[in-house]
Amino acid sequence: MKKLDISVIPGDGIGKEVVPEALRVLDTIAKVHGGLTLNYTHYPWSSEYYVEHGKMMPDNGLDLLSQSDAIFLGAVGDPSLVKDHISLGGLLLKIRREFEQVINIRPAKQIKGIVSPLTNPRDFDIMIVRENSEGEYSSSGGRVHHGIDEIVVQNSIFTKKAVSRVMEYAFELARKRNGHLTSATKSNGIVHSMPFWDDVLAEVSQNYKDIPTKSEHIDALSAFFITKPHTLDVVVASNLFGDILSDIGAAIMGSIGIAPAGNINLNGKYPSMFEPVHGSAPDIYGKGIANPVGQIWTAKMMLDHFDEMEMGTVLLHAIEQTLQSGIKTPDIGGNSNTTEVTDAIIAKIEE
Amino acid sequence: MKKLDISVIPGDGIGKEVVPEALRVLDTIAKVHGGLTLNYTHYPWSSEYYVEHGKMMPDNGLDLLSQSDAIFLGAVGDPSLVKDHISLGGLLLKIRREFEQVINIRPAKQIKGIVSPLTNPRDFDIMIVRENSEGEYSSSGGRVHHGIDEIVVQNSIFTKKAVSRVMEYAFELARKRNGHLTSATKSNGIVHSMPFWDDVLAEVSQNYKDIPTKSEHIDALSAFFITKPHTLDVVVASNLFGDILSDIGAAIMGSIGIAPAGNINLNGKYPSMFEPVHGSAPDIYGKGIANPVGQIWTAKMMLDHFDEMEMGTVLLHAIEQTLQSGIKTPDIGGNSNTTEVTDAIIAKIEE
Ligand SMILES: CC(C)[C@H](C(=O)O)[C@@H](O)C(=O)O
Ligand SMILES: CC(C)[C@H](C(=O)O)[C@@H](O)C(=O)O
Repeated sequence: MKKLDISVIPGDGIGKEVVPEALRVLDTIAKVHGGLTLNYTHYPWSSEYYVEHGKMMPDNGLDLLSQSDAIFLGAVGDPSLVKDHISLGGLLLKIRREFEQVINIRPAKQIKGIVSPLTNPRDFDIMIVRENSEGEYSSSGGRVHHGIDEIVVQNSIFTKKAVSRVMEYAFELARKRNGHLTSATKSNGIVHSMPFWDDVLAEVSQNYKDIPTKSEHIDALSAFFITKPHTLDVVVASNLFGDILSDIGAAIMGSIGIAPAGNINLNGKYPSMFEPVHGSAPDIYGKGIANPVGQIWTAKMMLDHFDEMEMGTVLLHAIEQTLQSGIKTPDIGGNSNTTEVTDAIIAKIEE
Repeated sequence: MKKLDISVIPGDGIGKEVVPEALRVLDTIAKVHGGLTLNYTHYPWSSEYYVEHGKMMPDNGLDLLSQSDAIFLGAVGDPSLVKDHISLGGLLLKIRREFEQVINIRPAKQIKGIVSPLTNPRDFDIMIVRENSEGEYSSSGGRVHHGIDEIVVQNSIFTKKAVSRVMEYAFELARKRNGHLTSATKSNGIVHSMPFWDDVLAEVSQNYKDIPTKSEHIDALSAFFITKPHTLDVVVASNLFGDILSDIGAAIMGSIGIAPAGNINLNGKYPSMFEPVHGSAPDIYGKGIANPVGQIWTAKMMLDHFDEMEMGTVLLHAIEQTLQSGIKTPDIGGNSNTTEVTDAIIAKIEE
């Protein structure tokens, strides 16, 4: 019997609503399928926790998490309680960084039962591979002077090691998919980091001559997600560009409420972390209408990560069947609530 | 008789095809309407010019341009001849910077006769106000070490002066439109520049309490352009974020080939510059199929800038009538060529 220890962090807002639902689904699939035991350890780390303790997690928080096989996270951020850069920096971004989750993968693909906001999009199936450890997200920088003379410097830091690593990962994935690679750049306007990004692409691509490769500027590429998503396959991007593209990817899928993400640790020293692309959505929290599909699809990604592809496939199929039968939350045009959608998915799995 | 001296820089690729067409339209409208003389001075500065002269413009290039009332530019960039960051940096970005064109304005609105790639979008009419002088586009930074240890630092620089200036401009515009303001931020991930951006917004908004204002993170906001563009009005953004949003805006309008832009000098010391959002599109250059609408709509923006609103209105109306009659280029589903579209627009104006 395979056993997995999962650290569960619902976090803020709708994270607290959708995470328990996704765990119900995980339990069902493990039971129905057999051969897998999932142990959960729950951590209440969140903006509320911060208000009480003055920090987003206890000092031994990372130690606690490091003992698990994976982290299953909801959403972090509640600006009414804590400024975002503190809550995110103290939890989500800290885990990504300290646990060397250097790659973030996010699919943008059409799934059955969801209407894309695009008119007749041709079938698209994109995988965004985002650099997750450096780049534009950097604590290097600061402010000088006060008042009308104030100047702020924000450093982006790119290293050969991290950039070539994410590109290799993306090329390998493109090869596995028999696909091709598009690199998001902005070397026409950002004149140090982005020409470097392009240079590394040129170098790494020497080892992947079988993979068709091109570069697009982030502005144009963002537009292509809308005008011709079917022409894209694997997309490799910096931390910020990957962030933006994956929300666009979620939007063209039909809702940001359905998109999953994996933060992948490559060296095996620390757990990987799985979280939906959507945020904590304080505006709809507590209404019971949060779309659980993002968190549930995230559970599938976690199962895939542990090579439980069969369970993952059953799960995605159950999601699609549920949506196709019209059981969906309001954000995707339905009038079911969070629990009803989850119940329906569970029922499909049990069928 | 009002007289305007216009510096004309077709630049690279399709810029060379669409600029002459837009001038034909401008001449027509000036003639039909009367009361306005347009003098053009043509400059062949481009990537080809660079190959010949080792620079994108002559040393006295800026002096020459500074004598005109406005600059009418096509597109810059031909990576087969010159690396983009050199061609752009030596011409487009240099003019924006040296002529203190500190604001970039770009509409994203539905125009008649063009099918949006969005399913039944509700009427949208967005104006993107982009900071055009600093931010992520900065030549500050550099590379350290070589080989696998290479590290690149790219600095973004934000000043109180420039950020408050662009926000004031955006608030004034929102007031004029009886609209509201959305600020593009990313303070949850980029922890120096973007919290500063938010702070300046909070401060400036004190003087515009009548304007409803909110902040959205760039990832979410990019998605909103797709999922609910009708909820947006004036959007204020940093240099990079404005760049990305305006391409997304062009995409939801139906084609990047139709979107115009103005680079506005506020202090009256130098000319403003008008250019379409699209690039030089080397892949379709020479085929005669480039969409002239972006450049022609750009001409309208230039007329508006000189308070020739009436001519601007006639021009936009002629564009819409032409498109509605089915005369369009292939990028927007037609099968007319560049000249045929222009001829039709001219005919409508002459009617
Ligand atoms: C060509 C490039 C440097 C430029 C920019 O990013 O500013 C372009 O994309 C634009 O939007 O005008
Ligand atoms: C919350 C924020 C810091 C985060 C990011 O930008 O990485 C989120 O948008 C995401 O994509 O996971």
